[in-house]
Formats: sequence, structure tokens, C-alpha cells
Amino acid sequence: MLKIGIIGAGRIGKVHAESISNYVKGAEVKAIADPFLNQETKEWANGMGIKHAYTDYKEILNDAEIDAVLICSSTDTHSPISIEAIQAGKHVFCEKPVDHDVEKIKEVMKVVQSSKCKYQVGFNRRFDHNFRSAKEAVEAGKIGTQHIIKITSRDPEAPPISYVKVSGGMFLDMTIHDFDMVRYLSGSEVEEVYAVGGVLVDPAIGEAGDIDTAIITMKLKNGAMAVIDNCRRASYGYDQRAEVFGSKGSVEIGNDASSTAILSTSDGVVAEKPLHFFLERYMQAYANEIREFVEAIVEDKDVPVNVVDGLEPVIIGLAAKKSIIESRPVKTAEIKSSFGL
Amino acid sequence: MLKIGIIGAGRIGKVHAESISNYVKGAEVKAIADPFLNQETKEWANGMGIKHAYTDYKEILNDAEIDAVLICSSTDTHSPISIEAIQAGKHVFCEKPVDHDVEKIKEVMKVVQSSKCKYQVGFNRRFDHNFRSAKEAVEAGKIGTQHIIKITSRDPEAPPISYVKVSGGMFLDMTIHDFDMVRYLSGSEVEEVYAVGGVLVDPAIGEAGDIDTAIITMKLKNGAMAVIDNCRRASYGYDQRAEVFGSKGSVEIGNDASSTAILSTSDGVVAEKPLHFFLERYMQAYANEIREFVEAIVEDKDVPVNVVDGLEPVIIGLAAKKSIIESRPVKTAEIKSSFGL
Amino acid sequence: MLKIGIIGAGRIGKVHAESISNYVKGAEVKAIADPFLNQETKEWANGMGIKHAYTDYKEILNDAEIDAVLICSSTDTHSPISIEAIQAGKHVFCEKPVDHDVEKIKEVMKVVQSSKCKYQVGFNRRFDHNFRSAKEAVEAGKIGTQHIIKITSRDPEAPPISYVKVSGGMFLDMTIHDFDMVRYLSGSEVEEVYAVGGVLVDPAIGEAGDIDTAIITMKLKNGAMAVIDNCRRASYGYDQRAEVFGSKGSVEIGNDASSTAILSTSDGVVAEKPLHFFLERYMQAYANEIREFVEAIVEDKDVPVNVVDGLEPVIIGLAAKKSIIESRPVKTAEIKSSFGL
Amino acid sequence: MLKIGIIGAGRIGKVHAESISNYVKGAEVKAIADPFLNQETKEWANGMGIKHAYTDYKEILNDAEIDAVLICSSTDTHSPISIEAIQAGKHVFCEKPVDHDVEKIKEVMKVVQSSKCKYQVGFNRRFDHNFRSAKEAVEAGKIGTQHIIKITSRDPEAPPISYVKVSGGMFLDMTIHDFDMVRYLSGSEVEEVYAVGGVLVDPAIGEAGDIDTAIITMKLKNGAMAVIDNCRRASYGYDQRAEVFGSKGSVEIGNDASSTAILSTSDGVVAEKPLHFFLERYMQAYANEIREFVEAIVEDKDVPVNVVDGLEPVIIGLAAKKSIIESRPVKTAEIKSSFGL
Repeated sequence: MLKIGIIGAGRIGKVHAESISNYVKGAEVKAIADPFLNQETKEWANGMGIKHAYTDYKEILNDAEIDAVLICSSTDTHSPISIEAIQAGKHVFCEKPVDHDVEKIKEVMKVVQSSKCKYQVGFNRRFDHNFRSAKEAVEAGKIGTQHIIKITSRDPEAPPISYVKVSGGMFLDMTIHDFDMVRYLSGSEVEEVYAVGGVLVDPAIGEAGDIDTAIITMKLKNGAMAVIDNCRRASYGYDQRAEVFGSKGSVEIGNDASSTAILSTSDGVVAEKPLHFFLERYMQAYANEIREFVEAIVEDKDVPVNVVDGLEPVIIGLAAKKSIIESRPVKTAEIKSSFGL
Repeated sequence: MLKIGIIGAGRIGKVHAESISNYVKGAEVKAIADPFLNQETKEWANGMGIKHAYTDYKEILNDAEIDAVLICSSTDTHSPISIEAIQAGKHVFCEKPVDHDVEKIKEVMKVVQSSKCKYQVGFNRRFDHNFRSAKEAVEAGKIGTQHIIKITSRDPEAPPISYVKVSGGMFLDMTIHDFDMVRYLSGSEVEEVYAVGGVLVDPAIGEAGDIDTAIITMKLKNGAMAVIDNCRRASYGYDQRAEVFGSKGSVEIGNDASSTAILSTSDGVVAEKPLHFFLERYMQAYANEIREFVEAIVEDKDVPVNVVDGLEPVIIGLAAKKSIIESRPVKTAEIKSSFGL
Repeated sequence: MLKIGIIGAGRIGKVHAESISNYVKGAEVKAIADPFLNQETKEWANGMGIKHAYTDYKEILNDAEIDAVLICSSTDTHSPISIEAIQAGKHVFCEKPVDHDVEKIKEVMKVVQSSKCKYQVGFNRRFDHNFRSAKEAVEAGKIGTQHIIKITSRDPEAPPISYVKVSGGMFLDMTIHDFDMVRYLSGSEVEEVYAVGGVLVDPAIGEAGDIDTAIITMKLKNGAMAVIDNCRRASYGYDQRAEVFGSKGSVEIGNDASSTAILSTSDGVVAEKPLHFFLERYMQAYANEIREFVEAIVEDKDVPVNVVDGLEPVIIGLAAKKSIIESRPVKTAEIKSSFGL
Repeated sequence: MLKIGIIGAGRIGKVHAESISNYVKGAEVKAIADPFLNQETKEWANGMGIKHAYTDYKEILNDAEIDAVLICSSTDTHSPISIEAIQAGKHVFCEKPVDHDVEKIKEVMKVVQSSKCKYQVGFNRRFDHNFRSAKEAVEAGKIGTQHIIKITSRDPEAPPISYVKVSGGMFLDMTIHDFDMVRYLSGSEVEEVYAVGGVLVDPAIGEAGDIDTAIITMKLKNGAMAVIDNCRRASYGYDQRAEVFGSKGSVEIGNDASSTAILSTSDGVVAEKPLHFFLERYMQAYANEIREFVEAIVEDKDVPVNVVDGLEPVIIGLAAKKSIIESRPVKTAEIKSSFGL
């Protein structure tokens, strides 16, 4: 039985604890740690059968019985805790992004690459039934040579302005999933990025120095092109679609809804809206990613999303940011070389 | 923490045990019993944290700590064990059907009605997201006065002939779910039944004295009409659709698939087939029904599917059987009066 | 250039005239006749380039230059005019039904069978792109051996009560198209019919001696079963669906809409309603049936819908009527033998 | 009865002639002209009731009885014949594009603006039921303030290389429809264009100096963003989709198919492919555009697609071309000012 410690008992930390309890055979959560540990969380941990609830994550790192940690704390702590945890000999699952700062990701990479510990990054969508189905069609050659990859990614609600300010910007916070998805679906690296963006949802987002709507075009190393459209708010819910089009055809994935019911009345033929909340939409994907992390440890296999997969979308995001600022296409090589990569 | 004993460790018994472990708060399985208990099942029980694995279900009934039992044994044992369990003061969840024999269901009813124990029957589809969504639309008045209820219910594969022989016939084994669904969606009783049926899938089913394909028409007490079409085998998978049509419109539910992926090639525009296996299709419904059973006990509420709900579909099924044999519409009152009901 | 006379200048007569002008090569309408010919119709005929507009249809029958007539007059005149027209040596296209009275259809049959003139009956749905597509899938063996045929046929609005009174009843007026469709899709004859029906839409329809909602189950000669559900009013529009299910799979056809637009808002995901008006829904089918009628004449081929195709749905309709009255399944042979067929 | 002359008796000229005959009241084709007039075309014209078939289009311009001309000749002749026709006092419907050369379009504009003759450009998709439905939703405020406009436009087959060479390039030949659609759906002008493109379908297209696949991003004057994805070949047919997303929701349009049939077998759930051939897909739109042209003349209204609508997409196309060559976003103002506009 693999023993796991969870660092950060916020929403996503709790989701992982519940997934492990319900869906992940051969692993159990032994401890959680959160600097703002309150009575409610303690009771929740107790109810989950989690033996220890700490305020200091170092208690987890010091517990020799714990094999692996999930880093679910605030983004700015991801990279330092990653390094500490690996140095403590723990396998690490780190929520995305590893960091907004490439230098810090480089430090994590160096530590990871000189260690035997597994290091997985939390790009949950790779484990979703819809995106997997598209990926499988591409890999099975059903669409032939890739021509165009399209991703629509729109949130149901914009985050609070306080969050926008520390989010690293829409590209590193939200689009980073879509950059990862372009890499996942294509199996190729991104060569060049051009982005247009604006503040169409809420002027306060603009005042906080961010955008809320964008279209990002990419040239890929494999010769295909990709385009992402993003918006921080879609009135009809969480909109997560993709298409890969190639020489033999196209595979498209649509949204999930809470039922297949269709109501036909004099008002129209009405289907359910997409699932609204990301935890509901990707519940199973969150469980799958931890299950595969555990399998990678137990069977000593490569993790499905490694530290390079954590770095590349940040590079693409920085290229997109620069593209907007300088109103020109930006090569990922330009960003990389500025970091000596 | 409600303590549960599971009688019958076959496929469905194991499904319930896993559902309780994963999804049902406030309940745990303390013991299972199965006359054919083997090593594999013992290990499975141990892995699930189930303390006791018996060959004799009476051990469960004799355990004063156990509050409720799930009867998942073979159909012919449902009614006697139901009676024993209630007499032992246990709350009972009994898989469908309570019995093929109305006299035996009557005996169960008598015992249930003179007891304070809860008694729920396992019509899992009432707890499915799609059927619930249709029911909610009907109850919210969205389709107005009911006119026509249609149910399509086709299995992906015919059962083995050995099972066909003891199944009670297609109407009591398979259609019984659809009869329940007519009652659930309409909120009304069935008054008259007319059925046509035949052996179109496999002659061996006919040789075993059963049919494999049927259309059953019903008149309901509320003035609406209903029709079910059944087949023991649909090449494309498990087909579970329904429609309720009324004065203001129609609500229809379709099948669930493993993803929303659509592949467009020179061969056509291809969507996923319906989920093939009933345990996969109704996994969540199985969990929901046990959760609501536990809630009914803990909060001392009415169970969502009671013993009368267990009786009525059997009456309708017997009317359908008689309709086929005598080639005429048969009133449910005729069947009931033959049993002094 | 085939010369056509149209008898009856009501809605459907005009539709045929316009179809011939727009879509049917090698044919032209030379004359129309209508006992209630008014100024508006005369002007319409003039605008269409129709040379003659008569009040007496015999003028058309007496015009030696006219090769074929379309009988679009009131139902009670279909059979006598059919006989007169054939005796005058005209090819005849007769709107459905040939007659409500089987004896009169028999007289038409006798005359048709002893003549070299073509005689086609106006079951337009056989010429519709959706129903044809289903038929082609069945004929190509894509669904294997037929098991179950399902037809949903609901009108957007009930007809006026004055029409209900002379309509011959819902089964001969509306369901007759669906009976034809069962024969068309299955390529088989109907052996036995059981119907339930009621007055759920408008009590005035019941007072006029008719029903407005029904479910009709049929056993077919080929071993398959069929079921039709009908309603005189569907709030969301003209609902025309079908499914043929067999050993290898199922082909289903849905409704046509005025566009593929889908509007997603906080209210739901809304598609267009089905086309509301039968002339709009079947516009192309009306043109196709006349085109094939003209082809049958010009190329001396069998008509696609012959006089027997005109008779059989009336027999099925009478069986359905009797089934409702006597509350029992009725064999078509019983109806036929009562007419010496 | 408006008299029309058609200049150019190729595929599209014939389509217009047949549309006018079948669908356009109050207009008739009196003459056609084609320099390569052959016997087959003469017979076709005769069969259509077209009185004159000329080799020299000037015969049409000289016919005082002819009110309007449709210019359906090769693209390089559009602008000179447009000017001649207007100078001859004819109303003009000109197939897209007016010209590849902005200077020549400017000359046409000058002549048009100093004349009372109507001048309509053939952007047929504005008259399509699907695109109109999307436009109506936008105009009715159903999606709120526009955020993102997306157009997918893929041909079923790449054109012959001989055509590619004289086509003006994919942006002016194919994407020009999509640029028009961005303007139509948004009701706004395009401010800036960035394009990526490549040769992914056929190297011979690259050798002919063109591309076959592209993604074009645009900033609009109204603050929204737009993106078009193009490919010269989609194996599954003619792919013509669009989405307008805004503050209140999204309207999406999909492809048309030849039927609604869905075949479910062990191979999957298969729907029809999109209509393959543009003349079949847009048949009704071609009729509608001519009908509205005739209405604009008869009722002396503004044409629905004027000469400025003919100019703007060419400007956008030239900006897209320049964007690819110079690998930077290009403002439409930059293109315009280079032509003194």
C-alpha cells in the first residue's frame, strides 16, 4: 500500500484525497498539510481516514513511511516544495503550473533529472475520456497526417480579480491547459506563436493587467497548425472542445452534459448545457491521473506527464504573452534561448 | 456508521460492495455471504475491508450489529430471505424481482407491512441521470398532460440459454425494468396490456420456451398510452431510450457513450456506440440507489422503491405473458383478482 | 412533352402544378379543373402558363392531347374520377386515399388491371430523402433481418372539426401514410393489427366520433413487428421519425429543420424545431413522386406506388378501427375476406 | 417581367439560369453569351426557353430589352464587363470576386457610384439558410456583444493545378467567401489580419505558388476577434461551419447532409457525410441571391451585397497574403492606403 501525503488542503487537494480513497487501488493518504488548517478540514481528514493533519508540510517530508506527495499548495510554492520533496526522496505529483518562472522550473528539472524519484505534472485533461478518445484516433492514424488542431476552451465564470492578479495571466493560468493539449494531441512541439487578445468580459480584468479573451495561432514542428480560442466567461457553461483535422478526416470532441435529455416544446428543441464546474467535468480525469501516477511508481514506469511537459506550455505561454505585447509572431526558440535553454 | 451485510457475492453483490465503499457515506459492508464462497471472493472481500465472508447468510442475519442487508442471491431465494431478514429486524434492499410468483410477493408484503424495517426493491434505472432527467421534466409540467410514453430497451447480448430457462421469461426478467419505468415516468398505474412477441434472435431461446423480441402496448390509469419495444440483442450495444410526449411537448433521453468523439472520414460521420455493459452504463445508478436506501434508514424516510413497486411490474409482466398466449389485451385487474389482490 | 391535366385546384393541386413547372422535365400542365374555380385560381393558372382552367373536369378527360391526369379533388370523388379517367385513356396519379370504401377501391382496381394506363397513388413519403435513405439501408442489408419497425407520426395541429367529420377517421386520413410506410420500409405485408387510441388533444374530436392519439402494433408477414404512434397535435411541430431495427443494427431517421443553428445560452442548448408545415417538409417529395410518375409513363415502367399499394393501407386502417372498437387484435385477412378479397 | 442576360455559360451561369426559371418570379433569361458556345449549350438554352445564345456578350449589352446582366465569365473579365454593362445601362450581378486587382475594383466602384444601376456581388453564402440563421441570432441580440467569430471552411477536393495558377491564390479564391462571412456575421470591418499557411494537401499546389491550408486571425473594428481555418481538401466532404460567441452565448451552424439517417451497427453510430458538392450545398442560396437582386431592381431597393462588399474581402485577402509573406500582422488600412483608399 503506497502511502501518500497531500500538501495543500484546498479544493484540489481534497479532490485528490477523495479520488484516492474511491478510485485508486493500492494507495492511501496518510497525511495532509496546510498552513491554514482549520477545524473543518481536520474533521474532513478524519472522516476520510487520513491519520495526520499538519500545518507544516515538512512533517510530511520527514515521515519516512510516506512514499509520494501531491503538491496542491499555492502556485508560488510549487517549485521550492518540489525540490525539497525530491531531495527528501519522495515521488512528486505537482499541480500545474510547476512555476510561472522558467528559471525556477529549470531548477526543478535539474533536481528531478538527477533523482530516481518520479515527478508528474497535473495536466488533468490528458486523462479525460473525451480528449483521450481524440488522441487515440490520431495515434491510430484515423485522421491521417495532421493539418489543423483546434481547441475551444472557455470558462463558465471569470475568477475573482484577487486571483487574476496572482494568476500569472490568462495564458499561464488557463491557456496553459490548452497549450498542453496541443502538444498532447499533436505529439509535436510548438515552433511559433501568434496571439490576439482583449478585455471583453470585465474591464476590471484589464485593470488588473490581464486579458479575458484571446485567439492563439501556432505553427507546430510536425508541419501542422493549431489554434486556441479562449474566454474567461461562457454564459452557457464550461466549454471544452477540440478537433484534429488531417489528410484522412477529422476527430472532434464536444462537451459533456448531465444527461442526454432533449426537451422539445413550442420554444425549441433544447438539450442540456455543458457541465458547469471543472471539478465535476474532470472528476474522473483527476482520479485517472493519480491512478497513473501511482502505477508509474509501483511499476517503475515513466510518468505520463513529466517535468518537460511542465516546462513547454510555460514557454508557449510566455511566447503568447510576448506576441500580444509586441504584436508579432514569436518563436518558442526565442523564449527558450533567453533562458539559456 | 450503518453496518451492511450482503447476501450473494455474485456480480451485482460485488458492485454494491464497491459502490458503498466508494460513494456511500455513513455506511460500510461488514459481511458478505455466499453458498459458493471461493478463495477469490474471500480475497476480494478482504481487499475491500469486509471483515466477514460466510457461506451461510444466516450468520449475517444473526449478527446484531448489522443494520441492513442487500439480497443479491438467486431470484428464487429473494422472497424467503426477505422474510427471514425482516423478521430478524434487518432493513432490506432486495434485487429485482422480489419473486416471479405473486403469492410469494404477497407474503413478503405482509411481513414488510407489519414491520418497521425499510424494504427497497432494486429498480436501479430510477436512479439513472437520464431517466431522472426525463422524470423531472414530466413532474415540472414541461411536457404538459401525458399522451404517449415510449421505451426502447434492447440488450447487447442474449443471456445464456441456461439462464433463459430459469429467468421467468423475458417479461419478468428484462421487461420488468421497463414496466417499472412506465410506472416511474408516468406516475400512473397500468390498466391493460397487449403484447406481441417472437423468437427472432436465437431459435434456442424459443426452444427454451421464451421469446427474445417484443412490443408491449399499455393503457394507463391516467389516460395516457405506453409502448415498450424489447430485444435480447442489439448489435450496436445496450440500447436504453425513452420518450414522454404530452400536450406541451416531448422529453426524450438517449444512450450514454464512452466519449463525445465524432470521427468524420470518407466512410461517414461516426459517433461512439452506446455503452455496452449494463454495469458500466448504470454504475452510478447502482451507487445512487444504495445511497438513497441508506438515507431512508438513517433519516427514517420512505424508501424510493417500495414493495408495491416490486409487485406491480410482476403483475404487468404476467398480463403481458397471458396477452401473448391468448392473443388479446389483458387487464392488470384480471391478473390481480386471480391472486385475490 | 407530356401533357398533364390537374383535377382539383386546391392546395395540393397547386403544389403539383408548381412542382411540374419547376422540377419535372418533359411534362407540362395544360389544364386544371375545379368546380369552385375562382378568379384568384384563374390568375394563378395563367401566371403558371396553364392554358385552360375549367370548372368541369370532364373537359380535361375530353381533351385528346392530355396524356395524364392528377386527381387532387375531394376524397369522395377519387374513385369515380379514377375510373372515368382510365376509361378515357388517361394515365392517372391519384391522391391518397383512393377511397375509404374498399368496394370502390376494388372497382378502381378492376378497371386499372384491365387497362394499359398507369395508375399511381399519392403516398408522397416514399419519395422523401429521409425515408428513402432508411429504405436503402434496409435493402442494402445494412440492418440484417428485420426485427422491429417503429414510426412516430405527429401532426403540428389538429385539422378543423368539419374536416375530421369527413376524414374517414384518423386511421384512414393520417395513419394511412404510416401504414404505407410500414409496408414500404419492410417490403412486407401486415398480417395482424392491434390498436389503442384515445381523445387526448381535443374533446371535440371525440364528439365528432374520432380519436386523436393512438398506438398501433402490427405483426408482419416477414416475421417482424411494427409499431406506430400517432397524435393529431405536437406542440413543437410536424414530427416524422422512423426506425428499422434488425439483426445487424438499426437505421433511424429524424426530422428536418430550417437550419442547423444551435444557440447556447444560460437557458440551454437550443436547436431548431422540426419543419412545421407538411408542404414545406415534403415539398421535394411531392416533386419526386410526380417526376417518377412521368418517368413511368414515358419509359413505360411500373409505377412506384400502384393501386394495390393504395388498397392495402386502407385494409390495415379498417383492421385498426375494428381493433379499437372490439378491443382485440384483428387480422387483415379478416377484413379482406369480408370484402371477398 | 424583368429580362435578364447571362454572360458566361459555364457551370455557374447555368445554375443561375435554372434558378431563375424555377424559383425567381417576375424574371426570365432572354439571352446567354459565351465565347466558347457549343452545340450542347445551345440545346440546353433552347430547352430552358432562352431565346438567344450568342458568342459575343456585346449582343446582350446592345439588346435594349434586357434590363439586367449576370456576369459569370472568367474572373479576369469581371471588371471590364461590369463597367461596359453599367455604361450600357444594365443592372449588374457580378460573380465574386469583382477582380483580384484593387485598382480595377476601384474603377468599377467609380462607375457604379455614378450610375443609377444596381450592382450586386455574388457572395452566395449570405443567402444560405444556415448562415442567415446565425446572422439573425446575432442581430436579434441573442448572443449579446460579440467576442469571437469562428469559421471553418474546407473544400471536398483541391481544384486542378491549372485553376490554382490563375485563381489569385487561395485567399482571393476560396477564403474570400469566409472574409465576406466574417463581415456579414459581425456587421463589422476587419482591422488587422495575421495568417499562417502551408502546403499540406498537395506539393503541386506549392509548386504553383499557392498554399492549401491556413489559419487566419483577425481583429475587428467592433472589438471582437475572428478566426478562419481553411483547407483545400477534406476527405469527408464540403465542410462549412461557423460560430459566433458573445457575452450572452453562442450560435453555431453545422453542415447539411442528404438525410437525417443514422445507422447504428457493431461498427459505430454513423451519420451522413456533409453534402459534397458546392452547387448542391448552396443551390437554394444561389436562387435566393438572384431573387433578391431582382427584388432590389423591381422595388428600387439597395442590393444586399454591394460593390464595397466586393472590395473589402479582397483587401483582407491581400492583407492575409502579405501577412504570410512578411510573417507579421497586417492592418487592412496599410493595404488600403497603398491603393489610395
